[in-house]
Amino acid sequence: MSDIDILVSEVGPRDGLQSIKSIMPTEAKKAWIKAEADAGVPEIEVGSFVPPKLLPQLADTAEIVQYARTLPGLAVAALVPNFKGAENAVKAGAHKITLPLSVSETHSQANLKKTHEQVYDEVRKVVELLNTLPEDERPDFEGGLSTAFGCTLEGKVPESKVVECAVKMMELGCDEVGLSDTTGYANPAQLRRLIKLIRAEVGDDKLQGVHLHNTRGLGLANTIAALEEGITTVDASLGGLGGCPFAPGASGNIVTEDLVFMLDAMGLKTGIDLDKLLKVRDIVIAALPGEEMYGFTPDAGLPKGYGSGGEKGWGIAA
Amino acid sequence: MSDIDILVSEVGPRDGLQSIKSIMPTEAKKAWIKAEADAGVPEIEVGSFVPPKLLPQLADTAEIVQYARTLPGLAVAALVPNFKGAENAVKAGAHKITLPLSVSETHSQANLKKTHEQVYDEVRKVVELLNTLPEDERPDFEGGLSTAFGCTLEGKVPESKVVECAVKMMELGCDEVGLSDTTGYANPAQLRRLIKLIRAEVGDDKLQGVHLHNTRGLGLANTIAALEEGITTVDASLGGLGGCPFAPGASGNIVTEDLVFMLDAMGLKTGIDLDKLLKVRDIVIAALPGEEMYGFTPDAGLPKGYGSGGEKGWGIAA
Repeated sequence: MSDIDILVSEVGPRDGLQSIKSIMPTEAKKAWIKAEADAGVPEIEVGSFVPPKLLPQLADTAEIVQYARTLPGLAVAALVPNFKGAENAVKAGAHKITLPLSVSETHSQANLKKTHEQVYDEVRKVVELLNTLPEDERPDFEGGLSTAFGCTLEGKVPESKVVECAVKMMELGCDEVGLSDTTGYANPAQLRRLIKLIRAEVGDDKLQGVHLHNTRGLGLANTIAALEEGITTVDASLGGLGGCPFAPGASGNIVTEDLVFMLDAMGLKTGIDLDKLLKVRDIVIAALPGEEMYGFTPDAGLPKGYGSGGEKGWGIAA
Repeated sequence: MSDIDILVSEVGPRDGLQSIKSIMPTEAKKAWIKAEADAGVPEIEVGSFVPPKLLPQLADTAEIVQYARTLPGLAVAALVPNFKGAENAVKAGAHKITLPLSVSETHSQANLKKTHEQVYDEVRKVVELLNTLPEDERPDFEGGLSTAFGCTLEGKVPESKVVECAVKMMELGCDEVGLSDTTGYANPAQLRRLIKLIRAEVGDDKLQGVHLHNTRGLGLANTIAALEEGITTVDASLGGLGGCPFAPGASGNIVTEDLVFMLDAMGLKTGIDLDKLLKVRDIVIAALPGEEMYGFTPDAGLPKGYGSGGEKGWGIAA
């Protein structure tokens, strides 16, 4: 990853699709993922290993993981709610798995039907499984700290609790933790403070990624705050598709198109071809008729003369 | 202003209304302005002293300025395209006047029908007029640097040119300059760089305000970058109404509701009551049937438990 500054991780095929009623056909998912990989997106969270009864939209996740693995250079990520999901993700060959822990225990019980202790037991079993694998088959294992900035059920979530959960996930054997604003409650000051607090306990290199929502329009402002703290991985969803089906009123990941435009304009290398990325939108729109797509850059288009003459980082040079 | 950290300047009645076809009735404008003042908004740009033929939406600006002056504690701002506009603004009693200079001369000619030299001549005459006034009747005079981050006609605008224009406006006798992303081209890195460059030439206290658009979704991210550079005045438009009628494709000020939520959540004092502000939206919607209103916070609502128990800066305390 040394040739990019910021890793944009596309989560639309997971977080986007799990929150809408339409079921995207498997072939459309493949076309979407391939088109984003072709545009240079380095990592895609392609699905979630949950029971198909709960989320029929993601029932084909194993097949999608297997397909995505054939795309050269793409890091294939998947969400796993528990040990069984992790087992299936390993079987399918995911390069990275994320097991979310809702810092709000009320949300944890609503979302994963588990107390914190029960989630920790799953994490222990996942680590045991991963430790049996040869190094080159072992996926990266991230502990996702969801509802880290507040909960639609509990309200405020104490920052000390977020730090405690981060430390615990690392102690149990996660490779890293990630910060998730599941509910769209985060603000830039909170982002900076919480990143500092967690990194002070687990180490800078163990918290590299944030998952932000744009529920109150602050998604990219929060991203800037995270970048200023040295965060290098940012999740986003094409067209802002998605949200959290178990957190009522919380919808809308930050929009990949707007995020990549912002980073690109700032002169930060993402490895992504912005023109190609903007065209991927058509695939999703065609496959999900009637679903709302967000994003300003796709409507406004790129600035006049942007990147012309082989000049990248249009906004940068004086 | 010592009791607030950031001055949010509402520009909807000017920038918002000038860019839509509907004409808001004078009484509705007064109700809007009064409701925002009652919500604690400290400054409102209430109109523009342009010929009514050009912008019939703002033909009642003199009456609106006179009315707004009766609202206790409100700073009443107005745009003036030229000397004649400034004369009328002074007569009406505006507390602050802003004369925009398009750094892109092509845009200047399209927008104000004037070359830079012709705009500078107007500025000279305005300063002469202001110098004849007693101190307590003299409005603050801002030189607005529009298209500072790029132009829909010229494309890239050299940063050296922006600095040159800022220096010139101060030399001619403006009290301060303001940076305007008229076209929604700005990115956070560019904001920080340009603020630094201009302040190095004119002094930190002579560049305190930014006027940002959300055309590509970066409005609040750019705001965060500006705040980090010490900017203390931020323009916004209720419901994101507005844009620039002479810059095709460039629409949408940053949304006052989302901006105030962000600042408030960060623990920055604005003097604005967020609940009251969110209710003002109804007045504008009722007076402008069919016009598009933007903003995420109004749809999503405030976070659960936000500000409850007399606790402000919800996101701040650990």
